[in-house]
Amino acid sequence: MARTFSFDLDALKRDLDGIELEDNPALVKQKSRDFFWYSPVLKAQLDDVTGDLVATPKDEAEVIRILAAAYRHEVPVTPRGAGTGNYGQAMPLSRGLVLNLAAMNKVKAILPGRVVAEPGVIMAELDRQTRAHSGQELRLHPSTANTATIGGFIAGGSGGVGSIRWGGLRDLGNVLRLRVVTMEAEPRVLELTGWELHKVMHAYGTNGIITEVEMPLTAAYDWVDILVGFDDYMAAVRYADLLGNSDGLLLKEIATVAAPAPETYFLRHQKFLKKGQSVAILMVAPQSMDAFLALTAREKGEVVFRSDTAGDLKGIPPNFELAWNHTTLRGLRIDPAITYLQTMYPVPGHVAKIERMTTLLGDEVPGHLEFVRFDGKITPMGLPMVRYTTEARLEEIIRLHEENGCPVFNPHRYTLEEGGMKQTDAVQLAFKHEADPKGLLNPGKMIAFEDPGFDFSTQKTYLFPGLKAAS
Amino acid sequence: MARTFSFDLDALKRDLDGIELEDNPALVKQKSRDFFWYSPVLKAQLDDVTGDLVATPKDEAEVIRILAAAYRHEVPVTPRGAGTGNYGQAMPLSRGLVLNLAAMNKVKAILPGRVVAEPGVIMAELDRQTRAHSGQELRLHPSTANTATIGGFIAGGSGGVGSIRWGGLRDLGNVLRLRVVTMEAEPRVLELTGWELHKVMHAYGTNGIITEVEMPLTAAYDWVDILVGFDDYMAAVRYADLLGNSDGLLLKEIATVAAPAPETYFLRHQKFLKKGQSVAILMVAPQSMDAFLALTAREKGEVVFRSDTAGDLKGIPPNFELAWNHTTLRGLRIDPAITYLQTMYPVPGHVAKIERMTTLLGDEVPGHLEFVRFDGKITPMGLPMVRYTTEARLEEIIRLHEENGCPVFNPHRYTLEEGGMKQTDAVQLAFKHEADPKGLLNPGKMIAFEDPGFDFSTQKTYLFPGLKAAS
Ligand SMILES: Cc1cc2nc3c(=O)[nH]c(=O)nc-3n(C[C@H](O)[C@H](O)[C@H](O)COP(=O)(O)OP(=O)(O)OC[C@H]3O[C@@H](n4cnc5c(N)ncnc54)[C@H](O)[C@@H]3O)c2cc1C
Ligand SMILES: Cc1cc2nc3c(=O)[nH]c(=O)nc-3n(C[C@H](O)[C@H](O)[C@H](O)COP(=O)(O)OP(=O)(O)OC[C@H]3O[C@@H](n4cnc5c(N)ncnc54)[C@H](O)[C@@H]3O)c2cc1C
Repeated sequence: MARTFSFDLDALKRDLDGIELEDNPALVKQKSRDFFWYSPVLKAQLDDVTGDLVATPKDEAEVIRILAAAYRHEVPVTPRGAGTGNYGQAMPLSRGLVLNLAAMNKVKAILPGRVVAEPGVIMAELDRQTRAHSGQELRLHPSTANTATIGGFIAGGSGGVGSIRWGGLRDLGNVLRLRVVTMEAEPRVLELTGWELHKVMHAYGTNGIITEVEMPLTAAYDWVDILVGFDDYMAAVRYADLLGNSDGLLLKEIATVAAPAPETYFLRHQKFLKKGQSVAILMVAPQSMDAFLALTAREKGEVVFRSDTAGDLKGIPPNFELAWNHTTLRGLRIDPAITYLQTMYPVPGHVAKIERMTTLLGDEVPGHLEFVRFDGKITPMGLPMVRYTTEARLEEIIRLHEENGCPVFNPHRYTLEEGGMKQTDAVQLAFKHEADPKGLLNPGKMIAFEDPGFDFSTQKTYLFPGLKAAS
Repeated sequence: MARTFSFDLDALKRDLDGIELEDNPALVKQKSRDFFWYSPVLKAQLDDVTGDLVATPKDEAEVIRILAAAYRHEVPVTPRGAGTGNYGQAMPLSRGLVLNLAAMNKVKAILPGRVVAEPGVIMAELDRQTRAHSGQELRLHPSTANTATIGGFIAGGSGGVGSIRWGGLRDLGNVLRLRVVTMEAEPRVLELTGWELHKVMHAYGTNGIITEVEMPLTAAYDWVDILVGFDDYMAAVRYADLLGNSDGLLLKEIATVAAPAPETYFLRHQKFLKKGQSVAILMVAPQSMDAFLALTAREKGEVVFRSDTAGDLKGIPPNFELAWNHTTLRGLRIDPAITYLQTMYPVPGHVAKIERMTTLLGDEVPGHLEFVRFDGKITPMGLPMVRYTTEARLEEIIRLHEENGCPVFNPHRYTLEEGGMKQTDAVQLAFKHEADPKGLLNPGKMIAFEDPGFDFSTQKTYLFPGLKAAS
């Protein structure tokens, strides 16, 4: 089913009278891009992608008007938060309308343990408001908290800072309620809770537009940013694993990055870092500092940086902007030839698996682990950097991981399935047929909808026909 | 070394002029007892134990005066919080002075994530104050929170409600700082943090008197008490295990109790309970309720009681007073012939081990599990009830557990070692020699001090010679 879309843009614009629109091609192209260029593979595939028009609704009523009009005129609609996704999630493969939700950024209610907000609010701003209100903050945020929206995180992200304590977005209870508008002749407004949330979470906006979110909050603390140096990377890994499993210590972030990445890529921290040291990147609650330092001393970790005693922090980014995909971002700025993978080291035996991969791949794949809670167990997830040579070698590195019992989630794919479990998500697919019968929401991202017969076992990359048609 | 103590009580009293004293034998005996009678074994051994005098200091200065005087006159001193320990921890085996800390009950400072208090404050009262001040509460409390003191918990307890999230008291970070007075000619005041805390934690007051505690706090919520019924006990166990491993759900308590104990022993809840059902006893954060109910429905658990919709709760105890040692207490009230054990089902394979013991022992040992975090893993700890027949059969049941890979911590012993790891705690022993050179603090509880040559491998029960001498 090589879908192509042809539509009367002017007719659509007329129907959207009174709504903030932008059709200057340069500006539209800007709002049609995200951090896809992280991946050399996606960069080649998606560089020409652009939409035709950006619409910026100021409330849910305008969202409904836009969707109804786009449905009528059969115009593809690709929702967009801040465009910080790094798999081209928010890129309009079949042109059409970019639905920019950035202006819907109000925090509506702050209650004990929960917050209700519009989808376009930047997560750091959300935290500022909940902190000021009642000393609360989001359980989880991506390392892009300072720029990314809560709606984009739910629709396109998976977890991040705080996952060491709370697991990922997919975990029941980490999103409380979503209000979603469907793409139909008369768009419906649905309220989803419990299991139903999975219909639209991490669905890349392919089956509904999130217009309100209700998220759980937790106690906010003045997290202390800490870097702990180790001469041996595996010592850093074992230390991080121990920290994560120390039930009385409250940490919000535990990552490890292998030498020489820290000294080479973490420019603003260079004065603190020792040559040849691998580091653990941590956020520690102030009340846990004494105990944390006692454990760190016993494990012979060297505290090379701590934000509570470092003095002038001007120009020094928060620790979480050294972690998650920011690690790779900092690497890319110095060395545009690197890229990365997403891997997992299942418990138990995780430390041995990490050691094996480190031995096998050495400095071609500098280690980067994010420790998270996964089905109750502290589990290291890998975001190893890769000194990229060819796509074939990248595939080989992926194979080597899989052969050694370390699953890889390919970040070099723009579809939901290929970046994830490589299988159809029946719940999301069924909901797409119901909520977006014409398949106008973010076309090309859900293979199961575009090409129900696609065989994931062939290992072939899916190429969305609409992408060729549009360019 | 059969130590005996002889002392001039009147001389001591004269030295304590101005401090609140009690020497009426009936009242002294009252304050010389705890919940030792839980155990048929301890009940036989300790029923006659009493002190000679109770002193109730109102501040640290008075504690220092009391200890200096007792040291001078070589009078044993046994500290006491509320006397809710259930291994005779607070019972003065060699008579002497009972140091009642109940009047030192001030909360001194409440800060973000921490509280500073005197040792004698009742934990529920502490929580009331921190909640009112800033919506915070203790991470952990025993099921005796409504009657027990924070100092007694640290010196004699191990964990409880909240351990599903934070592990036990022994976990680094769950106690922040202790101020301790030594038993010397001139008592010293020490401040312990980090690893040093282990010197006096769970040492039954044998090596120092705690005069101030600093504890971490966490966010307080209006926890919803829930009972979920299952026709099959193992289904309840698997459900509890799943709940504990659901990272996005915030719970403060997860326990399971096998039928027919709930319907027989939980009198105040009888109208909610179904015949033949085993139950999961839970405390769920309000913001987690939707997700919790979704999971429970999928697992086919029947929510038979929830405090947020039950209406009139008059006379209904909080859920945590059905859990931990309260389960056994409620059983004992109905059936004085039962007693209990403390067991552990190491992960992985814990569910299979529980199933094996359940099959093996049936209704002679009705199942009771408390799920806690243990070295990072959700682990079921057992407090199974035992329909007591003979001490020999009790020993056999213990052996059966151990043979099946389930360690037992014997709650029928009054010494530190026999109730715990059956080995000398070198740190606590060394500190006792330093802080209590004459061995006057709570004599008879630390075997390693009383009888350095005692051989734990013989499995023989230690009998403190001083106990015979005193009676
Ligand atoms: C340096 C860097 C670090 C990162 N770190 C992390 C991390 O730690 N964890 C993580 O999970 N991700 C991370 N990401 C990916 C991304 O930043 C986050 O997932 C972010 O939350 C996306 O938010 P956004 O507002 O930019 O969404 P966008 O990129 O604009 O959109 C993301 C997806 O959601 C859809 N969408 C947006 N808004 C809505 C809506 N209201 N309704 C329906 N669909 C919608 C879009 O169509 C798109 O498919 C990182 C990316 C970069 C570049
Ligand atoms: C029904 C029931 C349920 C229970 N549930 C739990 C539970 O869930 N978790 C748990 O851990 N325990 C539990 N216990 C045991 C006990 O209640 C708790 O450990 C409680 O915290 C003890 O506090 P207390 O004030 O009663 O201490 P006490 O019994 O008075 O003293 C305990 C020990 O600490 C010493 N001590 C007291 N104060 C000081 C001080 N200031 N300095 C030095 N030493 C001191 C005493 O000498 C004694 O050895 C339970 C007991 C019962 C009877």
